[in-house]
Order: sequence, then C-alpha cells, then structure tokens
Amino acid sequence: MESAAALPSAPRLIVPMEVYYFDTDAGGVVHNVAYLRMVEIARSQLAAALGWSLGEMNRTGLVPVVARTEIDYLRPARLGDSLLIAAELIELEKVRFRLRFEMTLAGKPEVIFIRCVQTMVTVQLPSGRPQRAPATWREAFPQLVTP
Amino acid sequence: MESAAALPSAPRLIVPMEVYYFDTDAGGVVHNVAYLRMVEIARSQLAAALGWSLGEMNRTGLVPVVARTEIDYLRPARLGDSLLIAAELIELEKVRFRLRFEMTLAGKPEVIFIRCVQTMVTVQLPSGRPQRAPATWREAFPQLVTP
Amino acid sequence: MESAAALPSAPRLIVPMEVYYFDTDAGGVVHNVAYLRMVEIARSQLAAALGWSLGEMNRTGLVPVVARTEIDYLRPARLGDSLLIAAELIELEKVRFRLRFEMTLAGKPEVIFIRCVQTMVTVQLPSGRPQRAPATWREAFPQLVTP
Amino acid sequence: MESAAALPSAPRLIVPMEVYYFDTDAGGVVHNVAYLRMVEIARSQLAAALGWSLGEMNRTGLVPVVARTEIDYLRPARLGDSLLIAAELIELEKVRFRLRFEMTLAGKPEVIFIRCVQTMVTVQLPSGRPQRAPATWREAFPQLVTP
Repeated sequence: MESAAALPSAPRLIVPMEVYYFDTDAGGVVHNVAYLRMVEIARSQLAAALGWSLGEMNRTGLVPVVARTEIDYLRPARLGDSLLIAAELIELEKVRFRLRFEMTLAGKPEVIFIRCVQTMVTVQLPSGRPQRAPATWREAFPQLVTP
Repeated sequence: MESAAALPSAPRLIVPMEVYYFDTDAGGVVHNVAYLRMVEIARSQLAAALGWSLGEMNRTGLVPVVARTEIDYLRPARLGDSLLIAAELIELEKVRFRLRFEMTLAGKPEVIFIRCVQTMVTVQLPSGRPQRAPATWREAFPQLVTP
Repeated sequence: MESAAALPSAPRLIVPMEVYYFDTDAGGVVHNVAYLRMVEIARSQLAAALGWSLGEMNRTGLVPVVARTEIDYLRPARLGDSLLIAAELIELEKVRFRLRFEMTLAGKPEVIFIRCVQTMVTVQLPSGRPQRAPATWREAFPQLVTP
Repeated sequence: MESAAALPSAPRLIVPMEVYYFDTDAGGVVHNVAYLRMVEIARSQLAAALGWSLGEMNRTGLVPVVARTEIDYLRPARLGDSLLIAAELIELEKVRFRLRFEMTLAGKPEVIFIRCVQTMVTVQLPSGRPQRAPATWREAFPQLVTP
C-alpha cells in the first residue's frame, strides 16, 4: 500500500452507477440484494482510492471482510436510473473499521434510495486470521481512530 | 390467504440449503451477498407456510418489501456445506413486521454462520402504497403484536 | 468417487426448483442469467448423484469447469412457478463431457422454458490443468463415450 | 429512438469492466454466470449508443429479450483484472437480431476470456408479443440485414 502522505485528504468517494435489468425484480424496482452488489463496487473503488486495490488483495491475500451490514431501503430505484453512491470511511478500530454508503439519484441528491453502514474486518487469506486495519489509514485519518 | 385457524401454531420454519459455486467467492467462502439470497428463500418459504405464497403475491400484487436488513457474519460457510436456516416472525406492527434468521451447519447447531433481522413493509403493487400487515397473522400470533 | 457399480443406471436426474423474486426482473419474468444459476444447481446435484459431490470437489480440488454453454429461451417462467429441471450426461470425450438440461413447468411437461447444453472440462485446482473425465463414468456409461 | 442519421457508423462499442469479489467463485476465478452479467452491461450500453436506452425501454415497454446465448469460456479472468468487452451488432433479421461479444484483458488483446453470441427478439411488454427490430437500425446498417 501507498504511504499515508499519498492518500486523499478525505476518505470519501462518489461512484456513479447504472441500474441494469439484472438488478431489478418482478416488482419493477431494484431488488434488495442488488443494492449490496452496488455497495461492493463503491467499497472496492473507495479501498482502491485509499491504496488497497483488488489487485493488491489478490496478490497479498490481505482482504477486508464484511462482518456486519445494516441497510435501510428508503425508496425504490428503477431500471435506467442513474445513481450516485457516496462511500466513506467513518471509523477505525484496531481490527475493525466502518464504512457508510448513501445512494441517491444523479442530479437529485434529495432522492435517497438506500443508506448503509458496513463493519469490516481485515483478514489474512487463506488462514482467515484477523489482522490490524491498515496502518496508513490510522496515520492519514487520526480523527477516525477509536479505541 | 388462509384463515388464522389454518396457520401453524408457531410462525417459524427451518429451511435446508446447500452451498453452490455461485454462492462462493475467490476468498474460498460464501460471499456476503449470497447469504441474502438464502435468507430470501427462507423468508419466501416461511411466508408460504403462513399462507402468503409467491403465487398469491403474483396474483394479488400484495407483497412484503424489505425496509431494513441487519446481518452479522459470524463464520464463513464453504462450498458443499449443508446449512439450515431458521426463519421466524418475531414482531407485528401495524404496517411493518420483523423476521429473524439464523443460519447454522446441519447437524452442528453450535456452528452459526449468520444472524439476520429484516423489517418488512406490506405494499400494494404497482402503486407501491403501504398496506396493513396480514390480519390473519395478527389474529393467529397476538403475542407478537406491538403498537 | 464411488465405483462404477454404485452409480445409477442412467446418468439423469430431475431437480425441482422454485422461482424467487431474486430470479426475476422488471420485465415480470425470470431473468436470462438466473436460469443459469438453476442449471448449476441441477448440474451439481446430478454430479453428486454420479459420485462427484461439491464436498468432494472442495476436498480434492478436482472440479468440472464450464467450457461452453448454449441456452435457448423458449418461454418465460414467472414468480412462484414450480419448475422441473431434467439434467442428463449425454457425451463423454477424453477430457470434455457434455450435459443437457431442459426446464419445464411441474405437472405440464409440454411447457418448456429453456433447453441448454453445457460442455465441461475437468480441471485440477489451483493449477487449472485439464484432467481426464471420471474413469467411473466411462466405465458405467460406455454408450456415451466418443473418441 | 433517434433517427438513423444520428447513429454511429459502426454498431460496435468497447466497454471497460472490472472484476469484483461478487464476480468470482471458490475456484479463484470469475464464475461462469458472472460473465453474462458483464455481457448484459455491454449489451445495454451498446443499445443505448444505438438509441435504445434502458430509460426508453422502461418508458415504452419495448425491450430486447434474449432468445439464445452461446458462450465459450476460453481462459479464466481473476479478481482485480481490468477487462474490455467488445460488443457488436452483427445481424438483423425481421424480428430477431444478433450480437457478438468478446472479452479481453485491457492492454493485452491476445488474452481472450470469453466469446459470446446472443440472439435477441424485440418484444412489447407486458404482452410479450414479438415486434420488428428497430427500423432505424435496418436503415443505418443495411449490410447487416438478412431475410
């Protein structure tokens, strides 16, 4: 991973997203499970922006694993909607860290589809043993560190 | 829907489940999103056992919609594992109701993979307007009714 | 794997399947990709019936990999439909083997939703090197062997 | 839909794509079903570039439906790979039309992961009745028209 100095000043990213047929269900709206694939895309891109890309996970076997997801479904998104997912690192414990996501309609930030918080644990594959969250993150974002 | 008298005495069901390749990811374990498909299978079978089948949803347009999911990932399940999902109706508000799920290894109930609580809202398709939760459920399970 | 003598006389299995919300799309029918998850469930259960279970794949790293899929979508299945997938081993080459699938409405075999043929290759994980198809299959089903 | 004059001269698009965890399986590679979600993304973007966006499908109910898929899996893609999908309209019958897809590693066009041909039918939702393929396409790409 890159040094803390190379990281963006705010651990936040906005990721555009389209709704495809495979995201929807017979209710005519995006299926509740599909939002979590979109959250994963945003999470992966935020991690990459913070120096921890999928390629690096693949090489090192050091990966963030979802320990808990809370997601509130506020309004249904539909086929062809252009979405924005704001993804943000909000808390760093020793091993766990927390991310927050909010999905809105592009150009209409008042139209909020979902809010989601995920608790992640850093683990070493293939053993699955928990590891400390990235030291560069603790250094770059001291305001997020909790005991 | 059937009358309250025809319902099982406890709103609970245990659903067996297998882990297939499409449920897993390159970490060698079941992917966090895949558990929610399994939860949906268990939820649909519990609803059917309580008189509210997918066929009936399809015909009437009256469907339960997920308003909130909380899921804790406790241990990773693996390819070829035989799982049991216990699904249970735990609370009935006017419009919302709550379901709890626990996924364990078949034959080893101490091996718990996930715990999940979902808050559902009954809506009428295609309008999407919220409706009261099934009256037969309130009648059959008065101990679950909260104001 | 079990000996050839322990295998069923015909390499064929019929697997019941339900259509859930996550299988459907905003067109109101089962999404084209979802049928291939169902085909995989049928394929995995057929392989297990022929002595090659997912658990054994997991332990030995010897797995069948899809090399080619052809699928014809004849009619759309819908939410709540009860389906039957007939899965059959139809050809055994040295390394490759071929499976055929047909999905019908339970109780109405004239309602055919999809027909599918998949060509599989046996590979050894993690190297990914191709291996000979199971010898017990060649022994048990000599009528399917082609040069 | 736009007029034929507004269409690009060649009905071809190259769509970049990333491999996420949810695309992979326990074999350590992209799952065979996941490639078809990627093909759908490329197909939707090609259709939009040719004047037939998802938003328009949603409004008019006129949608392309997959009638047949043939896909050859040549090499496995892996987590973190950057892919390119070339999507191309290759044939226009009265009702059916055909699309070809090829997925390669970005920057290494000789590394081909999959080749796929899909036959599509234009249908009117919710009736599901087949309709003629877009007239603007026949006008703009006469070399692709077959009887």
